Amino acid sequence: MSEQSPLSEVGEFELIEAFIGLYPQGDDVIVGPGDDAAVLRIRNGHVVVSTDVMVEGRHFRRDWVQGGDVGRRAAAQNLSDINAMGGRAHSMTVGLTLPGDLEAGWALEFARGFAEECAKVGAQVVGGDTTRGDQVVVAVTAIGALTHAPVLRSGARAGDVVALCGRQGWAAGGLAVLTRGFRSPRVLVEAYRSPQPPYEAGVVAAAAGATSMIDVSDGLVADAGHLAAESGVAIDLHAGAFEVAEPLHAVGAALNADPMQFILGGGDDHPLLATFASTGAVPQGWRVVGEVAEGSGVTVDGSPFEGPAGWVHF
Amino acid sequence: MSEQSPLSEVGEFELIEAFIGLYPQGDDVIVGPGDDAAVLRIRNGHVVVSTDVMVEGRHFRRDWVQGGDVGRRAAAQNLSDINAMGGRAHSMTVGLTLPGDLEAGWALEFARGFAEECAKVGAQVVGGDTTRGDQVVVAVTAIGALTHAPVLRSGARAGDVVALCGRQGWAAGGLAVLTRGFRSPRVLVEAYRSPQPPYEAGVVAAAAGATSMIDVSDGLVADAGHLAAESGVAIDLHAGAFEVAEPLHAVGAALNADPMQFILGGGDDHPLLATFASTGAVPQGWRVVGEVAEGSGVTVDGSPFEGPAGWVHF
Repeated sequence: MSEQSPLSEVGEFELIEAFIGLYPQGDDVIVGPGDDAAVLRIRNGHVVVSTDVMVEGRHFRRDWVQGGDVGRRAAAQNLSDINAMGGRAHSMTVGLTLPGDLEAGWALEFARGFAEECAKVGAQVVGGDTTRGDQVVVAVTAIGALTHAPVLRSGARAGDVVALCGRQGWAAGGLAVLTRGFRSPRVLVEAYRSPQPPYEAGVVAAAAGATSMIDVSDGLVADAGHLAAESGVAIDLHAGAFEVAEPLHAVGAALNADPMQFILGGGDDHPLLATFASTGAVPQGWRVVGEVAEGSGVTVDGSPFEGPAGWVHF
Repeated sequence: MSEQSPLSEVGEFELIEAFIGLYPQGDDVIVGPGDDAAVLRIRNGHVVVSTDVMVEGRHFRRDWVQGGDVGRRAAAQNLSDINAMGGRAHSMTVGLTLPGDLEAGWALEFARGFAEECAKVGAQVVGGDTTRGDQVVVAVTAIGALTHAPVLRSGARAGDVVALCGRQGWAAGGLAVLTRGFRSPRVLVEAYRSPQPPYEAGVVAAAAGATSMIDVSDGLVADAGHLAAESGVAIDLHAGAFEVAEPLHAVGAALNADPMQFILGGGDDHPLLATFASTGAVPQGWRVVGEVAEGSGVTVDGSPFEGPAGWVHF
């Protein structure tokens, strides 16, 4: 199979064999890809499971990101969900639909990027299914193990502090750059193409007694809203507490935008947002960015955030 | 939300809430849908995982099957993979892409059918993701538990007997009927729309010491070929050993086709095909249909099967 071949000229089994060759298996995989199902050894009795679907044209554009980027982003999005429960990712499955005119090289780059991102946390790709479809659809399931009680969205209490771990706003800045047809600042475009979630932070937060946690994927204020709603509390974020990195200032100036819009509205960096009973409980590497109070909803410095509307048409 | 509403006029969160309402959770689900990930209690340390993708136009046609049928078929296909390892299905996740002009009622019927099929084995739908796409794509992951060592495709040995459990050829007969624009014999059309895999048979076969096992989904001869290839043996099937049900005779006569073609080539009924060390080891409810010998490949009464070619274009 040549990397330039359109998939319509590639044998289905040949493509599957190529994928399997790109996915190394670890000791905790008793049966890997190729049988009716994979068999995993998960030492703890509690298994964490999450699924996300990414669709071409809706979640990514093939002219803005390469196959490897889509693979990395799809893996990161799902690994991050396990992270947000305080779990460790163990194994992944990948369902794919690919158009027949797609180059084989795109699909192989996807698999390489996917495997690369999984390797960051020691997760293995244990199964998948690939079939022809009108557009690229990536449906990933991540399976993890828990070493502590799961950290839910519903545990925040009035008086808790709100803390953030990981880059936030960089990917949204990169997307704003790409949307306007630019390719720099390159560091932001790269942040959009290849997110760097804080994969070690979820377990650490669980061990430190985080009262609630979520990964930021819909947007920081929107996801703070999920924590507030599920916990039955109000959250106030402090704009001055966030780090506004230099490239975000630069892109804000170039696009005549407030860089805080990227930070408060952006959702593709997958940092973790969590609540802790006190500032003293917040682990190293986390930044306190707000507080929990009685009530409902999310405010920024006491005022509603003027971001995208919450009601989303299907 | 009215069942007649096109999905483009339905709120994303409203649709998700409706889905969640259709998926009851059991005691072994510690955290169900709605958080970053679900948390499952799996008492045995070995977890079985399988993923399959179904695409409109390739795996089903919306004018031949209803939403509920697609839900039942998608669930059955994945539950059957767990069955074929000798496992018990525990939980399912469902990734969906749906076109905006699809009626909400179709999506809800899909979820009802999916939940109905899962309920047959006590499996729960613990997570999912639904997003808009150009065509209906269903990506399911099934997670199960093992009570015995997994039964692989690779364990068949010369001298073993080959046995089948479950209806075979009925769905292919139903598809042949639909393809020609007919709607009867109704029992075959129903078999295609709503398969009835022998969900209890996998665990029983594992307990009885099955040496290899697969679920028939690519076609009986094709799947026997997977067993033969993975085990490094030859398999001979005995045409006279199969039961040719009356409706298969009827549709064969009506379409001027040999009903054995449906049985040997069909793949949508999801029976189990397994090998056992001797006839005495074959559990009740299974039918001996062939034998394992030294060599390679699959024959029917000693001759190659003239079915569809094995090489599949992507």
